[in-house]
Amino acid sequence: MVDIATRVHDHQWKIDPIVRSLIDTDFYKLLMCQSVFTHRRDTQVTFSLINRTHRIRLADLIDEGELREQLDHIRTLRLTRGESTWLRGNMFYGKRAMFRPDFMEWFEGLQLPAYQLEKRDGQYELTFEGSWPEVMLWEIPALSVLMELRSRAVLSQMGKFELQVLYARAMTKLWEKVERLRPTPNLRIADFGTRRRHSFLWQDWCVQAMQEGLGDAFVGTSNCHIAMRRDIEAIGTNAHELPMVYAALAEDDNALARAPYDVLSDWHAEHDGNLRIILPDTYGTEGFLKNAPDWLAGWTGIRIDSGDPATGAETAIRWWQERGEDPTKKLVIFSDGLDEEKILQLHAQFAHRTRVSFGWGTLLTNDFRGLVPGDALAPFSLVCKAISANGRPTVKLSDNPEKAMGPPDQIDRYKRVFGVGEQQPVAVVV
Amino acid sequence: MVDIATRVHDHQWKIDPIVRSLIDTDFYKLLMCQSVFTHRRDTQVTFSLINRTHRIRLADLIDEGELREQLDHIRTLRLTRGESTWLRGNMFYGKRAMFRPDFMEWFEGLQLPAYQLEKRDGQYELTFEGSWPEVMLWEIPALSVLMELRSRAVLSQMGKFELQVLYARAMTKLWEKVERLRPTPNLRIADFGTRRRHSFLWQDWCVQAMQEGLGDAFVGTSNCHIAMRRDIEAIGTNAHELPMVYAALAEDDNALARAPYDVLSDWHAEHDGNLRIILPDTYGTEGFLKNAPDWLAGWTGIRIDSGDPATGAETAIRWWQERGEDPTKKLVIFSDGLDEEKILQLHAQFAHRTRVSFGWGTLLTNDFRGLVPGDALAPFSLVCKAISANGRPTVKLSDNPEKAMGPPDQIDRYKRVFGVGEQQPVAVVV
Repeated sequence: MVDIATRVHDHQWKIDPIVRSLIDTDFYKLLMCQSVFTHRRDTQVTFSLINRTHRIRLADLIDEGELREQLDHIRTLRLTRGESTWLRGNMFYGKRAMFRPDFMEWFEGLQLPAYQLEKRDGQYELTFEGSWPEVMLWEIPALSVLMELRSRAVLSQMGKFELQVLYARAMTKLWEKVERLRPTPNLRIADFGTRRRHSFLWQDWCVQAMQEGLGDAFVGTSNCHIAMRRDIEAIGTNAHELPMVYAALAEDDNALARAPYDVLSDWHAEHDGNLRIILPDTYGTEGFLKNAPDWLAGWTGIRIDSGDPATGAETAIRWWQERGEDPTKKLVIFSDGLDEEKILQLHAQFAHRTRVSFGWGTLLTNDFRGLVPGDALAPFSLVCKAISANGRPTVKLSDNPEKAMGPPDQIDRYKRVFGVGEQQPVAVVV
Repeated sequence: MVDIATRVHDHQWKIDPIVRSLIDTDFYKLLMCQSVFTHRRDTQVTFSLINRTHRIRLADLIDEGELREQLDHIRTLRLTRGESTWLRGNMFYGKRAMFRPDFMEWFEGLQLPAYQLEKRDGQYELTFEGSWPEVMLWEIPALSVLMELRSRAVLSQMGKFELQVLYARAMTKLWEKVERLRPTPNLRIADFGTRRRHSFLWQDWCVQAMQEGLGDAFVGTSNCHIAMRRDIEAIGTNAHELPMVYAALAEDDNALARAPYDVLSDWHAEHDGNLRIILPDTYGTEGFLKNAPDWLAGWTGIRIDSGDPATGAETAIRWWQERGEDPTKKLVIFSDGLDEEKILQLHAQFAHRTRVSFGWGTLLTNDFRGLVPGDALAPFSLVCKAISANGRPTVKLSDNPEKAMGPPDQIDRYKRVFGVGEQQPVAVVV
């Protein structure tokens, strides 16, 4: 039977909102936000959308009015009582009260700040300016809104059964990946696919399919909203934005060289266990590890997020050995451009030498490659980054020059300060 | 939102009924039923289930209690007022009031007669005895109940997402057939898949997918219930049971030789246009056409339902030419063991020489081949046939000796009377 009330309610919708919760975001954003709220809450930061796939002309595909409606809707969201209760009371990484009362009070009162939106050369220039803990929470919803509006633009021309078959094919595609992964023992895979998901409902489906299909090998999702609704682990630690902003704020080259360690020093004071994960590639993994203080070698693991992942893992293992640590007790988290084939390769190569875990993103929650004419639903490389802090530009080098960002003179300065030489470019797909 | 009333209602179900309407059956059954009601209503006929695929041990797969519940449920069904209105008022094959008031009054009062059910050698012996117009209406619901209980038995061990992916794969498989058929102009394809469907809901999905995917090339469904609900054409003419029972009733060899033409003589008086379709293979197509009266050559078309279909079509075309008819004005309906590949082949071979149309059955509504381990959902050859009339055994020869049925001595007699010589066996898949 038709639920008449639901139908009537649906008719009253002005829009079909993509993001319906302030915690429809990555768990590590909230961890970082609390850290920023504690240590750097007055820093003025600008986040900006960057489409690294220029051929996808988002401003031609997506109606500006629809985009504004979605972004405006996100500004109407407030943390609900249930979400607050979950964040305050749930156990994350084995710890209760992960989020402190002062942070939760601030979060309960939060409205996301205004955005600036313009069109230029077929792309949207979308920026968010304000205090760091506020604007940083725009990154994930802004990305997922743009990704899903792009999906909707492509899907809007399709018939009802054509759509059903499209999703049938996408389901089959994901399930074949699950079936390829299933026979391998001791896999640990988490969903990291919120930001570039095909759609919210699709991510939610993928997470549940992984749960049934992989069982214990599926260790959780980065998406807090889905983690809460589906009662599964919320997963995530920290990201490049911390060292990027800390570095931009550095007063001189000495302070700049110290900035990435200052970040982790603050983190060290706040977290332990599996949350002590080094993200070493912001200004080059080699130099970062060489100059790292000894207490960092005692951390639980390293996340490999750019460059050749096997090389990154070898570097980490060698570094631990040099510092007298036992790599078999350590954790290597791979999170860059993964698909099931690469997961199996890396697992086979490293699982007997260290503990490994995978943060599977875009090709988990947005693999519609080859399913529509012109591959119009293929994922692409959209990011939303902190581009300045207190008026100074941020810089990222990473282990892949294709992922570097910042003004050229500042990139040169950072390379000099961090001793980064020649780098191997790796094509950025997603 | 959950529709609470629906959930409560569902909890009250004793069973999940497979057949929920007396017109969840093939249209030609109703046409034939009216003809039988008019001409031979007191004939006592026995229908019996025959599983031609012995390796599928239905009695091991399907619980007898569940089967009885489903069959008992069918005996509770009565023609509803809406169904009666539709049968009385709808236009079928361009004609209003296809079903006469006296037949409709009888049908409105009909309850399907009792059944006999026993297990033997891992198979069910399921028979229906009674007056011909009553028992003949058991054939299609009995088959679809057995087919769907077999599907349910296989599906009952699967997880929620495993099931979703199974259906995703089946949808993809059907859609790929639709996509292969779509580019060919002037195709005419109808759904003939009720009796051996995977399930009712799946047939309903297939019909709607064909409607969207093929547009005008999809000309209708044999299933009256779906035709009514989806407002599409109900399709079908007549079947082997008419000549088989007429032949069994023949008092001597002369009457036997005449019986297949007596059937069509009765039909000629009742129907015209696209309902005048010869089904020539019951006792061999060659002999049937050679001895046919000239008025039969004036009929609209021929349905090819056994033997090599191209040979059958060539035979029909040659026969029309010999009788001075223009084959390009005639209609050849292929309905035996079709899949999209064979449809395209036959269309390419004959569409420029005659009008062609396709009745696509089992591999439209039940192609789950290769989708589960051990191919446990592959379709198989289950039929329900009139095996005796007024105490005399029925016989079918067909153009494929693999499809012949009846006592050996009677088969020999029929072969002699109808002049059937050597026949080419064709493997029966479905």
